[in-house]
Amino acid sequence: MNETRTPDSRRRSERSRRAIYDAALALVSETGYARTTIEGIAARAGVGKQTIYRWWPSKAAVLMEAFLDLADQAADGEHVFPDTGDLAADLRLVLRATVDEMNDPVHERPTRALAAEGIVDADLGARFVEKLLEPPLQLYIGRLRSAQAAGEIRPGIDLRTAVELFVGPLTHRWLLRTLPLTHAYADTLVDYALNGLAPRD
Amino acid sequence: MNETRTPDSRRRSERSRRAIYDAALALVSETGYARTTIEGIAARAGVGKQTIYRWWPSKAAVLMEAFLDLADQAADGEHVFPDTGDLAADLRLVLRATVDEMNDPVHERPTRALAAEGIVDADLGARFVEKLLEPPLQLYIGRLRSAQAAGEIRPGIDLRTAVELFVGPLTHRWLLRTLPLTHAYADTLVDYALNGLAPRD
Repeated sequence: MNETRTPDSRRRSERSRRAIYDAALALVSETGYARTTIEGIAARAGVGKQTIYRWWPSKAAVLMEAFLDLADQAADGEHVFPDTGDLAADLRLVLRATVDEMNDPVHERPTRALAAEGIVDADLGARFVEKLLEPPLQLYIGRLRSAQAAGEIRPGIDLRTAVELFVGPLTHRWLLRTLPLTHAYADTLVDYALNGLAPRD
Repeated sequence: MNETRTPDSRRRSERSRRAIYDAALALVSETGYARTTIEGIAARAGVGKQTIYRWWPSKAAVLMEAFLDLADQAADGEHVFPDTGDLAADLRLVLRATVDEMNDPVHERPTRALAAEGIVDADLGARFVEKLLEPPLQLYIGRLRSAQAAGEIRPGIDLRTAVELFVGPLTHRWLLRTLPLTHAYADTLVDYALNGLAPRD
């Protein structure tokens, strides 16, 4: 970072950064991850290639940041899981929001392209999981842990596996497009899965 | 079909067909679905391009048949779901077999390449789901239906959603490679999900 930058140059930098993210995500949506290039991003963002190389070491780095920024926007900067004391209601809220995100083309197209590339490229897939997937999964686990402490989930349940009962079916339906992804589906998943984790009477 | 073929020519045809399937799946594994071509398959199988065009109208058609053949082999030609009367044991058996298949490179690599392409190409994805995914899911549903009739699954459970509690998490873990896919994981999934579908006492 250049400590002597003026407010104007910071604004210009911020504008360029935003243009680069937008261009990167648009290109990934249109041509796929593999065919997106630094040159293409620069041309579409209206910046020089060197501007991108000054800020990021590689295409993978700029794309990962663009995806993190997209995820941040979808989460409205919130990185907490709701905890109203009503576990089912909290899970429905989060799963419904995920459904909305998965159905929103702005989010769906680039994320789908990234997921597809991660499925065949194990290294990229591992970064995708570490940076983009695991952090939200850990928020679920935190919420399930407090539910387990409150006796709403039976002792001995492995929470890492439990969280997959919610996100696994949703992702399956989304990625493979088997059937429509709706709020009603999210609610049913919460009902069935939570019943599976509840204490046995 | 040529009714006047001799046994020798039928054997030659069968050998060619097998070579074409093998070449198609190997190419998809190595270069991805999009970059696999009829020319490439013919060269690798050691047959003329016209042999392929005589039997299949398109690359998509030959690849879909190669995948159907692969799935048939994995299922050992069996297209029934076990029904021993013990629902949990039957589900564990099938999910463990799916884990083994997903961990077998012969099956994994081409299926992963096909799934990745289907994720970004909606038309291919729809064919993949219709031909390869829905038929086994319907077998699950049949087994769950008889369990529901026997009172082991509570009335009102939507069986199409229920089946996703088993295959969704498994596919999520496989495609995204979040954590190892093991028999123990399959067993835990059956335990949690089946508990979620069981009658409430």
